[in-house]
Amino acid sequence: MTDQASLAPSPARSDFYSISAATGEPVGEAFAIHGPGDVDAVCAAAEAAFDTYRSTDRETRGQFLERIGDEIIAIGDELIDTAMRESGLPRARLEGERGRTVSQLRLFATVVRSGGWQGLRIDPALPDRSPLPRPDLRMRMVPLGPVAVFGASNFPLAFSTAGGDTASALAAGCPVVVKGHPAHPATGALVADAIRRAIAASGLPDGVFSHLVGPGNDLGSALVKDARIAAVGFTGSRAGGLALLALAQARPVPIPVYAEMSSINPVLLMPHALAARGATLGTEFVGSLTMGAGQFCTNPGLLLAIEGDGLDDFISAAGGALTANVGGTMLTPGIQAAYKKGIETLASHSDVETIARGQAGDGVTCGQAALFVTTASAFLADEALGHEVFGASSLLVRCRDEAELRDVLAKAEGQLTATLHMDAEDETLAATLIPILERKAGRILVNGWPTGVEVTHAMVHGGPYPATSDGRTTSVGSMAIDRFLRPVSYQNLAQSLLPQELQDAAAKDGVPRLIDGKLSIN
Amino acid sequence: MTDQASLAPSPARSDFYSISAATGEPVGEAFAIHGPGDVDAVCAAAEAAFDTYRSTDRETRGQFLERIGDEIIAIGDELIDTAMRESGLPRARLEGERGRTVSQLRLFATVVRSGGWQGLRIDPALPDRSPLPRPDLRMRMVPLGPVAVFGASNFPLAFSTAGGDTASALAAGCPVVVKGHPAHPATGALVADAIRRAIAASGLPDGVFSHLVGPGNDLGSALVKDARIAAVGFTGSRAGGLALLALAQARPVPIPVYAEMSSINPVLLMPHALAARGATLGTEFVGSLTMGAGQFCTNPGLLLAIEGDGLDDFISAAGGALTANVGGTMLTPGIQAAYKKGIETLASHSDVETIARGQAGDGVTCGQAALFVTTASAFLADEALGHEVFGASSLLVRCRDEAELRDVLAKAEGQLTATLHMDAEDETLAATLIPILERKAGRILVNGWPTGVEVTHAMVHGGPYPATSDGRTTSVGSMAIDRFLRPVSYQNLAQSLLPQELQDAAAKDGVPRLIDGKLSIN
Repeated sequence: MTDQASLAPSPARSDFYSISAATGEPVGEAFAIHGPGDVDAVCAAAEAAFDTYRSTDRETRGQFLERIGDEIIAIGDELIDTAMRESGLPRARLEGERGRTVSQLRLFATVVRSGGWQGLRIDPALPDRSPLPRPDLRMRMVPLGPVAVFGASNFPLAFSTAGGDTASALAAGCPVVVKGHPAHPATGALVADAIRRAIAASGLPDGVFSHLVGPGNDLGSALVKDARIAAVGFTGSRAGGLALLALAQARPVPIPVYAEMSSINPVLLMPHALAARGATLGTEFVGSLTMGAGQFCTNPGLLLAIEGDGLDDFISAAGGALTANVGGTMLTPGIQAAYKKGIETLASHSDVETIARGQAGDGVTCGQAALFVTTASAFLADEALGHEVFGASSLLVRCRDEAELRDVLAKAEGQLTATLHMDAEDETLAATLIPILERKAGRILVNGWPTGVEVTHAMVHGGPYPATSDGRTTSVGSMAIDRFLRPVSYQNLAQSLLPQELQDAAAKDGVPRLIDGKLSIN
Repeated sequence: MTDQASLAPSPARSDFYSISAATGEPVGEAFAIHGPGDVDAVCAAAEAAFDTYRSTDRETRGQFLERIGDEIIAIGDELIDTAMRESGLPRARLEGERGRTVSQLRLFATVVRSGGWQGLRIDPALPDRSPLPRPDLRMRMVPLGPVAVFGASNFPLAFSTAGGDTASALAAGCPVVVKGHPAHPATGALVADAIRRAIAASGLPDGVFSHLVGPGNDLGSALVKDARIAAVGFTGSRAGGLALLALAQARPVPIPVYAEMSSINPVLLMPHALAARGATLGTEFVGSLTMGAGQFCTNPGLLLAIEGDGLDDFISAAGGALTANVGGTMLTPGIQAAYKKGIETLASHSDVETIARGQAGDGVTCGQAALFVTTASAFLADEALGHEVFGASSLLVRCRDEAELRDVLAKAEGQLTATLHMDAEDETLAATLIPILERKAGRILVNGWPTGVEVTHAMVHGGPYPATSDGRTTSVGSMAIDRFLRPVSYQNLAQSLLPQELQDAAAKDGVPRLIDGKLSIN
């Protein structure tokens, strides 16, 4: 077995345990905590593996990604059981998340094989150009180098050890060092072993992937500061993302940080839709809000509506559905505590009314859902009302008129998503709002709920700051690979020195090329 | 005439003058200095113009860019004469630079028309997918918002008021606010007027372009801090670029800074090439080094050679050519002073020998060329020897063997370019160096000199930090447009609400689209 131990001194056993989300109690033996020496060792291994790994051909790299998926499937029920215990998420959700994780790896395998991510460009020499000949210029995208990935608490599979950041960085040709989320060390260890088996089966160097675990922030800080790390992927809290960003910017050589941080995902209930089906929307909304105990980055934490027909129906239906909802187990006791505090702050706010609270649920770490209401003027007067409360909490903002709705939107921070519920008669108003939403969010939805994030080519799971630290990118979907690439131009290199895909002999390989500015596919 | 005055209170006349580069003396009337009130006014105008400008169709925007070029040409000799006086650069160089500026605008006009920059992606709905239907997802790149552009001292036309940053930002659909370089206010004013005429002729809002001038750093700082500015383009010193980067990162909403800062552009003289034509290389090198008084970002400031045949011939020929070279007028007295200081530091360094100095030249602000030599061990021992000396100065590093050459390369900072002079017999060594150079530089050249930068599709004028503040980008060539774009995904929008180019009716417009992951051109 290819093991971390081959790369780093054996860390000491500790008081760091896998914690049951439902009980808050430790399970099994203490986990080994990695320290600065391990960071040094795995970064050295990643750096050493980089040139070998980035020069793998597209087929080899594609097969490797698929193999990781196969090895994850091969773990079987143990993976689901472990993730259930550590995250408190139900079986069906985690089976779905495993499917998503594997299909994500397979998607990136097809992306790697297609070769389009290399962005090949060729400007042939013009030896007879006057006054000076033009040289031969060829361009491709190359991987940045070893990437540090921080696993997320709320997706122990799809945004963690072998999640979207890892898959897209590996697809780009970057070795990956994962800092596993301390909320699911046992799940992470199973997935890390699966990746190591895929590395061994593919004949790749061990340093292509490493997995570090431990509580606290020192381990992650040391990783981001290591000179060999070339980029960072992160999904988590705003405080955590900004801390990593500050570390990365303060390095002697700053590096990009792709932190997906916080979003309240405004949902606009348009007048005609509200009048036509306020109650239906209210019930549907609660389904989206409470899914996974509300622990989604795209959870609908803000509702905006203009006073008018159907709004009371919406409130009544949503309130009813929420009251009947039984709170699910939250990911960690710490997340539950933060959620409770956020709820208490809203509930005790002088300008906020509680519409409804859900049932408390059986477990000690359940998150009891909550729906609040306030006025646009109150919302505009207190910035804190726009902050994310991670969990099944949402705030409805009642706007007197369109102008007030626009004021609220203008003040909103950057978001992952913005949603319009609308009927045909709302289209005139919607058309004037979309240009505003385009500047605020990475994804605009009509008549859906933001909590489903498709892993496809046209998906953007990103958005202006502070939804992410880099609004020019997405962390879900095939475009996520672009985060880990940079362009290099080759001037007048002999064919034998050019990268294979830029040689004339590769011209008919089916990979798209921009030749003298004209797109060509052969 | 559409004038800045219509957007801002008339600034007071001052002691800020156009300075003759050759004499250091002021010419003409004092220039009006813009202040914080002007920043506020032009940013408000840019923000107000943004939605109108970004929704122009591709043909309108392409014609606008071409019109700017036409208006620049229409200024005639006054532009060249003014730029000559302010920059000290010779007529032929500035006529060439004007041609480059105009062809750059025309290149971006063709890029805008081609539509590929929008990166269109469509994942059609799969209503029958199980367990859940897939929604319709469509993606396009949208412009970031108003862009602040800082003109460069060394390219008063091609990297200034209507230079590459302005052209690419306008092509992306972003209004531009230029902070003109204080070394050429009169040149900048002529070009700014040309852009304003093109705006008026195209029926676009005034706020699409504004031009601010003044000495000192306060004006630029205020511009970068303005909440309506969404990105920054800069070409200049490392200190200047890093100062803007720090300001941008400290904003409540941080924004991207594309600063092209400093590079010493290593040139590797490979053993067989050196043995075969050391003297020729030496003469050619001095031509590249002294062009434009050495004031190019891609100036070859570092030579690397392994001890062996031909190295002495190179040194002797380069020394001879340099001794004969007559120093050209430098861009500003301040740049000349910094150059002199850099030269003195090198000349007095205990481990550095002076190979040759050029002639002083007639003018008071001429830059006398210089070539120095040191050993690899000395170079490795003193980081300061790797710092850029802006002007016609270069340092030859003698390496005992390949291992020492690799050590020097490993220690080198990020660069815009890296050059190999080589013969066929050098290929084995070159093949092992190219993977190193790919990680250090944005462009790798063989048997050429880095000072020519083609404005084409495959050009990368960028590179890892500190060559630029964002090594994922280029500031020259058609890819420069990508710096000012971000992705937005549209889920289940009615055709009538979708952006025109994502509607089904646009499918045959010749713009490339990735449909379900497959590239399609119709």
